Amino acid sequence: MLSAVKKNAENALEICGIDDKSYRDGIIKTANALREMNDIVIICHKSPDGDTLGSASALCRGLRSLGKRANVKCADEIPQKYSFMFDNLNEHNIVPQHFVSVDIAAPHLMGALEAEYGDKLDVCIDHHRMNSVNAGVKFVDDTASATGEVIWILLKAMGVKLDKSMSECLFAAISTDTGCFKYSNVTIRTHLIAIQLMQLGIDCAGINFKLIDEETPSKLALKNMALSTLDYYCGGKCAVITITSQMMTESKAMPEDMDGVASIPRSISGVECGITMKQDGEAWKISVRSTDKINAADLCARFGGGGHKAAAGCKLATDYDDAKAQLVEAVTEMLGNHTDKN
Amino acid sequence: MLSAVKKNAENALEICGIDDKSYRDGIIKTANALREMNDIVIICHKSPDGDTLGSASALCRGLRSLGKRANVKCADEIPQKYSFMFDNLNEHNIVPQHFVSVDIAAPHLMGALEAEYGDKLDVCIDHHRMNSVNAGVKFVDDTASATGEVIWILLKAMGVKLDKSMSECLFAAISTDTGCFKYSNVTIRTHLIAIQLMQLGIDCAGINFKLIDEETPSKLALKNMALSTLDYYCGGKCAVITITSQMMTESKAMPEDMDGVASIPRSISGVECGITMKQDGEAWKISVRSTDKINAADLCARFGGGGHKAAAGCKLATDYDDAKAQLVEAVTEMLGNHTDKN
Repeated sequence: MLSAVKKNAENALEICGIDDKSYRDGIIKTANALREMNDIVIICHKSPDGDTLGSASALCRGLRSLGKRANVKCADEIPQKYSFMFDNLNEHNIVPQHFVSVDIAAPHLMGALEAEYGDKLDVCIDHHRMNSVNAGVKFVDDTASATGEVIWILLKAMGVKLDKSMSECLFAAISTDTGCFKYSNVTIRTHLIAIQLMQLGIDCAGINFKLIDEETPSKLALKNMALSTLDYYCGGKCAVITITSQMMTESKAMPEDMDGVASIPRSISGVECGITMKQDGEAWKISVRSTDKINAADLCARFGGGGHKAAAGCKLATDYDDAKAQLVEAVTEMLGNHTDKN
Repeated sequence: MLSAVKKNAENALEICGIDDKSYRDGIIKTANALREMNDIVIICHKSPDGDTLGSASALCRGLRSLGKRANVKCADEIPQKYSFMFDNLNEHNIVPQHFVSVDIAAPHLMGALEAEYGDKLDVCIDHHRMNSVNAGVKFVDDTASATGEVIWILLKAMGVKLDKSMSECLFAAISTDTGCFKYSNVTIRTHLIAIQLMQLGIDCAGINFKLIDEETPSKLALKNMALSTLDYYCGGKCAVITITSQMMTESKAMPEDMDGVASIPRSISGVECGITMKQDGEAWKISVRSTDKINAADLCARFGGGGHKAAAGCKLATDYDDAKAQLVEAVTEMLGNHTDKN
C-alpha cells in the first residue's frame, strides 16, 4: 500500500507541476496517516468559509469512499450559501478515534470545539503561513491558494476516486479563497487543479454565483446604508465607511454579510487607505485595507492593533467623531511621510 | 511557410485541447491571411470593453513583432482602466491596406468607423454566435469565452513569440468576458490558455483589480443612489432598481459605470427577475436579467423589445409609475403562469 500511495502522490504532483522531494514526502506521510485512521472527526474553523467547509466535506467524502466512518464538525452554524456542500452527507454514528483539522491556523480558531479537540489532533492540513496548531502530523503549504488545493493532492495520493460532490466542494474551496481566481494567491497550480475538477462536469458558474455574486436583501441593504456614509479624506487617498449597530439591526444583516463591505473603500480608484469603522458597543472596531503606499499594520499598531501590510485591524474606545479624527490624522501623517520620501 | 503555420497551429490546438480538423483548417487559413498582410488597421467595437481592446492590442503587437506596420482603431474613447493595454504602442504612420475586425458581431457595432471600414474587411475574428460582419476571411468561434482565446491560438499559429504585453492584453480580454473565470462561458480551454499567459510572469491580480474590483468614486456614488431605489415585488421574486438622469448628472457617472449596476437586482437571493429602469429623456430604457424561471426575451417582447432568455431589453415611452406598473404586472403574470405549470 505504501508504494501505491507514493505512486499516486507522484502522479498528482506531476499534474499540478510540483517537483519537490520534501513536499512529496510530506504528502505521502499525511496520506498514509489518513489511510490508517477510522472513526474520524474533521474540524473546521469557526465563522466557517468556503475553504474550511469545502476542504472538510471533500475530505470526509473521500475517507468514506475508502470505507471509513467520518464526520465534519464546526463550532458555528454553516451559512446557507455553503449548505450544498453537505447534501447527502448524513452524520455517521461513531465513537471518534481520530481528529483532523482543515484550514485552521491556530487552536483558538476552532472556537467552542477547542476545549474538546484542541489537544487531540492527529493531522493538521492548512495553507496559512503562520500555523500554531499542535498535531501528530502537520502539512502546511503556504504556496497553496486554498487548503482545498492541498486536499485535492492528498485525496489523489490516498487513492480516492474523486466524484462530482468532492470536486464541487474543492472548487468552492478554491473559488472562495481566490475570489474566483482573482487574487494574487492564484498560481498556475490553482488553474491546473481547477481543470482537474472541471473534468468531472461540475457546475462551476452556478457555484461561483452562489458563493460570490448572490447577495441577500439584508446584505444589500447593509451595503447601501454603509455606502451612504462614505467619506473621502487626504485628497481622495483615504476613504472611510461606517457601520453602526443600528444599521446591523435595521438591515437584519448577519455577521458574514460584513464580508465585502470592508473591502469597498480600498477598491475606489485613487484610494491608498480604505477604513471601515464598525460600532462595537461603546467602541469602534477598525478594519484597514491599503495599497503599498501605506502600511496598514503600522497604522493599526498606533492604536494597539496589528495585522498585515495590506490588511490590519484595531479598536478605538472613544466616540465616533474622535475615533475618526484620530484615524484620519494618522493616515494624513503617514501619507505625508510617504510623499516626503518619494 | 505554410507548413510552419500548420505545425504551429497544431501545437497551439494541442495545448488547449482542440482536436477538430475544420477548426485547425480555419486557424491555418486565418493565420496565413494575417501573415500575408501589411499596413493593417485593427478595428474594435464601439463602447469598447476589455475583450475587443485586449484582442486588438495583442494582435497589433503580434503583427508588429513579425515586422509589419499595424494600428488599432476604435470609434469611442478608451476607458481609463484599459489604457495600460496601449502603453508603448505608438501609432504607426501608414497608408492602410488591410483591415481586421476583432470581437465585432455586426457592422453597426463599429460605430462611427462603419462608414469608412464596413465594406473593406479582410479578416473578421470573433466569438459571438450570431455574426453578420462581411469579411474576406471569417473565423468565428462561439465556444471561446472571449475573442482573446482565439487571438492566442492565432498568434501561436502565426509563429509570434508572445511577450509580456501581449499576454497581459489577452489575460485582460479573457478576464473581462468571463468575469475573471466566473461565468458559464469558461471552459477547460480558458484555464489552459490562462496558464500559458501566466507563464510569462504577468501581474494577473493587478489586472483583475483594475478591471473588476476598482471602482471610481462616481460609479460608487451612482451605485449608492441606485441601491436606494431598490424595490421588491412578487414576494421578493422581482426586484427593480432605477437610474434617473439626475443621478447620472449628480454622480458624474460615465456610461461604462452602468456596467455592474444592471446586474445587481438579479443577484439578490430569491430574485427570479431583476429589472433596471434607466431614464432616457421622456422614456425609460429597461434592462432585464432573469433566472430560468422567467424568459427575459419574452417579457421584453411584450413591450417591443428583445434579447436572450436570461438578458433582454426594451423601452417604455411613458411616465415612471406607469412603466413600472406595466412591467411588474407582466412579471407577476409570467411568474404566475410558471407556477401554474409546475
